[in-house]
Amino acid sequence: MTTARTSKRLSNPWPMPFNDVSTGHRQTARTQELATTRPKRKRRTPEEAREEILLAAEALILEDGPAELKFQSLADRSNVAVSNVYHHFGGVLEIKRGLAEKVFDELTRDLMTALGEEADNEPRIFARKVMSRVYSVLRSERYAKLIGWIVLSTELGELEGFTRPLPAMAALIAGHMGQHLPPDTSERLAQFIIYNVAIVAVGEGLVGPAIKTALTMDEAAAGGSLWLGDHWEELLARELEKAAS
Amino acid sequence: MTTARTSKRLSNPWPMPFNDVSTGHRQTARTQELATTRPKRKRRTPEEAREEILLAAEALILEDGPAELKFQSLADRSNVAVSNVYHHFGGVLEIKRGLAEKVFDELTRDLMTALGEEADNEPRIFARKVMSRVYSVLRSERYAKLIGWIVLSTELGELEGFTRPLPAMAALIAGHMGQHLPPDTSERLAQFIIYNVAIVAVGEGLVGPAIKTALTMDEAAAGGSLWLGDHWEELLARELEKAAS
Repeated sequence: MTTARTSKRLSNPWPMPFNDVSTGHRQTARTQELATTRPKRKRRTPEEAREEILLAAEALILEDGPAELKFQSLADRSNVAVSNVYHHFGGVLEIKRGLAEKVFDELTRDLMTALGEEADNEPRIFARKVMSRVYSVLRSERYAKLIGWIVLSTELGELEGFTRPLPAMAALIAGHMGQHLPPDTSERLAQFIIYNVAIVAVGEGLVGPAIKTALTMDEAAAGGSLWLGDHWEELLARELEKAAS
Repeated sequence: MTTARTSKRLSNPWPMPFNDVSTGHRQTARTQELATTRPKRKRRTPEEAREEILLAAEALILEDGPAELKFQSLADRSNVAVSNVYHHFGGVLEIKRGLAEKVFDELTRDLMTALGEEADNEPRIFARKVMSRVYSVLRSERYAKLIGWIVLSTELGELEGFTRPLPAMAALIAGHMGQHLPPDTSERLAQFIIYNVAIVAVGEGLVGPAIKTALTMDEAAAGGSLWLGDHWEELLARELEKAAS
């Protein structure tokens, strides 16, 4: 393996936005702290207790695997009595639904915040920054794994809520790009970006680390962001050219 | 939404290889057949019984969600008595390990077969065909979901076996391309291809359908294969040019 050479030639030209520490990572740390360091039970509001239980459920899924999502483990981890876990949720399925809803809400907030912060840029910069922000939110191991868990949990029913923010995002991106491009081009590009960024980010967050290890690749050589960014630049440049002519 | 226009402009230029019905899809159909249509118990060799139980485990994970992986459900589905399920596996964790091993073995066989069948092509065609074969194996919903399940099942321990075929694949691709490119370039490109194809395929297999539905995109407009193929062509063309000069 020629790791040193590889890393020089393929080093990521967009190191900053794509290597952002995403909100997701920080929340995992917070999850662990809340879920493991509390010495003994204390009085909580019903909302606090629910939140503790959902944080414990998330920590169990990410650290011990979804199979560990049981009342006793949740009670131990959240420091809430088993009877109280029953009181707040009634069943494991309700806890799963509660966690899925919480993840959807946070994901929507994170994605829309990221988009809003870039709205002042001119369209080419905007599109690039939006891509990198969406990418860094979705590729966080936390979101990638929780989305994977939700997709696999067919017992949750037709809960395809992790896609809930996507149409609004597509409309926001298309609207901004529509200032410089024909409406149908903007709409099509917005969908195309979101679709491709999302599948790369979730795939990378889920299986990227294991593949990197197996192929002894370094971080810089592996970044899906590199080729995605290059490709996107070329695609957008072509569309802007077409629109100008 | 401008679906008709979108589909015309972004229709996949590589319809054949990327739209291959992968082995995975066919096996899912077989899984269902074996697991649901048998009317009553019959004599089986121990190997047959193990195989039936693992097929039932796979069907349960894919159709009812990993949470349904319980002895009673496995017994019902495989038409093997609960006591016999215990006899063959002893615990749910052993069944999970058995299924993960089976999936790894099949994935290795499918990927290496796909690669072997393309080995006679000249390097540029070879690389493109190999990409599309690896992509169509990994993006099958069966593999994407089972790989996702394995990655999330931390209780399986350090079982990162879904990456097992990857170093051999990288060596095979690098060896073939090394006939026309410097060794370090071939090696780097082979790693880069495998990494990127694998994350796109797994991401697409897991979340692609839900995103397509949410954005009301049609199949042709969504194909990750399109831009991946374009980008790869450009990358390889540049490297071949460099090597020739």
